[in-house]
Amino acid sequence: MLDGIPDLKSMSMEQLHSLCDKLRNKIIDTVMKNGGHLSSNLGMVELTVALHYVFDFPKDKVIYDVGHQCYTHKLLSGRADKFDTLRKLGGISGFPKREESEYDCYNTGHAGTSISAALGIAKARDIKGEDFNVIAVIGDGSFNNGLVYEAFNSVSQINSNILIIINDNHMSITPTVGSMHEYLEKLTADGEQNAKKRRHETIFERFGLVYDGYYDGNNLELMIDKLQQIKQKIRTQSIILHVKTIKGKGYLYCEENPQETHGISAGNSKATEYSSVLGSTLTQMAESDKRIVAVTAAMTPSLGLSEFFQKYPERAIDVGICESHAAVVCAGLATEGLKPYYAVYSTFLQRAFDQVVVDICSQNLPVTLCVDRAGISGSDGETHQGEFDLSFLSLIPNLTIAVPKDISEFRQMLLASANFDGPLAIRYPKDGFKIYDGEPFKFGKWEKLRGGSDVAIIACGERMINIALSAAQIACEDGIDCCVVNARFVKPNDTHMLDALNQKYIVTLEDNALIGGFGSLIDMYFSRSGKIIKNFAYPDEFIPHGSVSELIAKYGISIKNVSDYIIKNAHR
Amino acid sequence: MLDGIPDLKSMSMEQLHSLCDKLRNKIIDTVMKNGGHLSSNLGMVELTVALHYVFDFPKDKVIYDVGHQCYTHKLLSGRADKFDTLRKLGGISGFPKREESEYDCYNTGHAGTSISAALGIAKARDIKGEDFNVIAVIGDGSFNNGLVYEAFNSVSQINSNILIIINDNHMSITPTVGSMHEYLEKLTADGEQNAKKRRHETIFERFGLVYDGYYDGNNLELMIDKLQQIKQKIRTQSIILHVKTIKGKGYLYCEENPQETHGISAGNSKATEYSSVLGSTLTQMAESDKRIVAVTAAMTPSLGLSEFFQKYPERAIDVGICESHAAVVCAGLATEGLKPYYAVYSTFLQRAFDQVVVDICSQNLPVTLCVDRAGISGSDGETHQGEFDLSFLSLIPNLTIAVPKDISEFRQMLLASANFDGPLAIRYPKDGFKIYDGEPFKFGKWEKLRGGSDVAIIACGERMINIALSAAQIACEDGIDCCVVNARFVKPNDTHMLDALNQKYIVTLEDNALIGGFGSLIDMYFSRSGKIIKNFAYPDEFIPHGSVSELIAKYGISIKNVSDYIIKNAHR
Repeated sequence: MLDGIPDLKSMSMEQLHSLCDKLRNKIIDTVMKNGGHLSSNLGMVELTVALHYVFDFPKDKVIYDVGHQCYTHKLLSGRADKFDTLRKLGGISGFPKREESEYDCYNTGHAGTSISAALGIAKARDIKGEDFNVIAVIGDGSFNNGLVYEAFNSVSQINSNILIIINDNHMSITPTVGSMHEYLEKLTADGEQNAKKRRHETIFERFGLVYDGYYDGNNLELMIDKLQQIKQKIRTQSIILHVKTIKGKGYLYCEENPQETHGISAGNSKATEYSSVLGSTLTQMAESDKRIVAVTAAMTPSLGLSEFFQKYPERAIDVGICESHAAVVCAGLATEGLKPYYAVYSTFLQRAFDQVVVDICSQNLPVTLCVDRAGISGSDGETHQGEFDLSFLSLIPNLTIAVPKDISEFRQMLLASANFDGPLAIRYPKDGFKIYDGEPFKFGKWEKLRGGSDVAIIACGERMINIALSAAQIACEDGIDCCVVNARFVKPNDTHMLDALNQKYIVTLEDNALIGGFGSLIDMYFSRSGKIIKNFAYPDEFIPHGSVSELIAKYGISIKNVSDYIIKNAHR
Repeated sequence: MLDGIPDLKSMSMEQLHSLCDKLRNKIIDTVMKNGGHLSSNLGMVELTVALHYVFDFPKDKVIYDVGHQCYTHKLLSGRADKFDTLRKLGGISGFPKREESEYDCYNTGHAGTSISAALGIAKARDIKGEDFNVIAVIGDGSFNNGLVYEAFNSVSQINSNILIIINDNHMSITPTVGSMHEYLEKLTADGEQNAKKRRHETIFERFGLVYDGYYDGNNLELMIDKLQQIKQKIRTQSIILHVKTIKGKGYLYCEENPQETHGISAGNSKATEYSSVLGSTLTQMAESDKRIVAVTAAMTPSLGLSEFFQKYPERAIDVGICESHAAVVCAGLATEGLKPYYAVYSTFLQRAFDQVVVDICSQNLPVTLCVDRAGISGSDGETHQGEFDLSFLSLIPNLTIAVPKDISEFRQMLLASANFDGPLAIRYPKDGFKIYDGEPFKFGKWEKLRGGSDVAIIACGERMINIALSAAQIACEDGIDCCVVNARFVKPNDTHMLDALNQKYIVTLEDNALIGGFGSLIDMYFSRSGKIIKNFAYPDEFIPHGSVSELIAKYGISIKNVSDYIIKNAHR
């Protein structure tokens, strides 16, 4: 029934219901094996089937905001046979991908882009004089993001009609927060019977949109009926369709635990080793240090901060999926002498780049950025890898950047940060494995983990220290003496130690893009030295989905590659 | 009357009116001499005097969004005697600056941050158990920005009360666009007499704010009265006060030409040499190439695109001050085969960093970013310099970065871009001086402007080419043969030419920060070559206000410094 592209339009309602069951089972089976987004996808089965029943994809275009809910769409558009490769290296992505299918018209991954993209696509349609429908499906969690408002604001300006479907399930990864959410709740509480009356009151009408809702998005017949009606209207008017879906629908455990089952073994919605250390250390510090405030953007549990939020609600702020706003709130808090810790995934920190530059760093304010899921983050792919932060952070004046070699050093860095009076970023990966021996931690100072006179390997972060130590040992067996340096501060560099490195060969290792990263700072430092430097880092391309270890190896950072390079070159 | 900090609270209404006249004259005199923001500041005189009359600064805190309207505040807070140094190197900044006065509690420059910052400051106040008022003053232009919505959305979550004053003058730099603006207009049209009725309808109430307005913000008595009433309430409730002001108030020419007089001889609200070439070339290209769309974020005239917008309104989109949204709209347009040109100031492109990474470049879409006011932009200071774009753009995979050596080459790049099928950024400075001789332009290829076997100077952009050619000539007189290369593509580098450079000494010149910039790419390229490389670029600090030439020299990039370095080193 799922082979090829099923002809939904020829199916009876009974067959469609049976299809929904099959889709749901396929999603559950696959996600249980491969990991992935479970609850959000289960909630969207009926609505997606209704969309495919009513509209003509790929001629019509649908954009799934963030993309956490596109599995049914993938299964209905010719990818069911490859669906068991979901999130595997070389397999089907967990997010919409134009490269994968003409049914995916726009790649998503970060929240709030769907309406802007839909407006762009609809505008292009109108400029070209073509005839198709453009639909944005957006969750209530994304609805907090400022892009949505910017897009609303220009609906009348751009003047190309689209359908916006609010898939309201009360949740981001955590329950949705904020006034817009409360407002959606209020609309819901009013009930469908008041639709006529409500029409003249909704916030959406203020933006020149027609509001229609709410409806039960898990009711297949109702969704088909509604979409058929709307299809007649959306070429002459932009419409917001507000539907309620149940996150985890059809799988009781998910329905009851939508937060825990947002992502399954994807690691992205659970606290990791480093996140847990962040949470426990910050909670402990906050007890005696009343200046400490924790700020998140809709990711509190996976950042390890649930306990902090419970224990110090008056000093805990979750602003929803608003990374830019969170950064400015932190800057405001810091101007008044508080110590904000803004915990955020590396990839989402990109959303606050300007605010980190202008609001935090140009004012030189003591905000600590706890940059989680830095480096390769794995199976979510291109839009979720954290391979750019060392590059986009190190270009910012006044910012100190720390990279712990293990969770123990991370804890020491956090403790030391309380008395550090400037902007600080601490970046750490998804996974933590072991605790290394080392010299006592000193703020701003690197440490030598191993001596050696032929080659200096300078590595930052746990994954790279691990590779450096093993490669050094292999080279040693080959008669080449390698020193290994833990570059735990990427900026400023420990110039004292750099100046003391008298090895002719320098090798740098980092879990980051080559361009603008740690290695490039070292290249620049030694640009007039005549030293021979080799940088191991990720090449200048977007890194797709796969496991962390597969991807690090795929991009050439392996014990073998590093030791081979050293043995080949230092022997010359 | 303006000496020291005038004691407004002891003044009669007559004296206050006379003060307003003096302030207005002082602003006009100074801006006419020094350049600066004129109309926006003239409109804010009465409101600012009323704020200082009613509130207790610096104990109370006021944040001016963007900061285009803070001159009266500066004049009333002890900076009148130094006001003639406005925007001069080492003088008073045109924007709020904490470093300058305790009356400036938060630095601004980019739109939309004031409410988020005010919430952060108010939250800090409440955490510390202190007692003061926090006020955000925001123009209707900034009101389009998504940060405002994100802040509204968390007002109830953060739960610390503030006063938001909407200073509604119908204008960004250009007339404000978008639905929120239309909504504000509608509120205004309703008139004050309907306030009671309107209360229950405003969009702001949906966000849990109390709306009070609108009122005439140029009526001093009314403003004092209103603010005194509000002062009694804002510790228990967040309030939005909507006032109308006249941009340019009190200076007839400004009132009639608010767009032209937004910035005076600041160059930032007028089309420059490069901007004019963008406008004329793109308008010409669009005639035959129906795929071309121009997109701006509230800066159309100063980007040189007024003619394009007039001639092709159906292919021209100004989304208001929404840089992120604009980037996503461009990505959407490009997925449908159109060729969007997104013109934006370098500093404001920081606002769209994530969208350039994820939406444009990870989808490898043919969007052309026309990055105006790149490099040092001058008298607006830290928040407006364009010294970071080569760094934050070159780290992005798939993006090609071009830097024309003059307006003629810029035009050729634009013409060539029409057939370039990928993301492209062309960055250019505020000023253009001359047209250089050179080899015929080839896409992706550098050119040698001068041969020489001892030293290779690789320069990018007009300002740097100019310095390179002069320095080479001086070195030549000293017997050192310098080749000069126009690195008109910063990424990818022209590796063919790089490989052919057999000089031992390499010098790079760029109008950008050192870290992560063009020079760092060259250092990395030659990191295993043993060449001796010197990078001239801006040091790792924020660059304050001053003239372009003063600042470039201040940061060590001068003909003398470059030629001195070459002569000193290449002779060894």
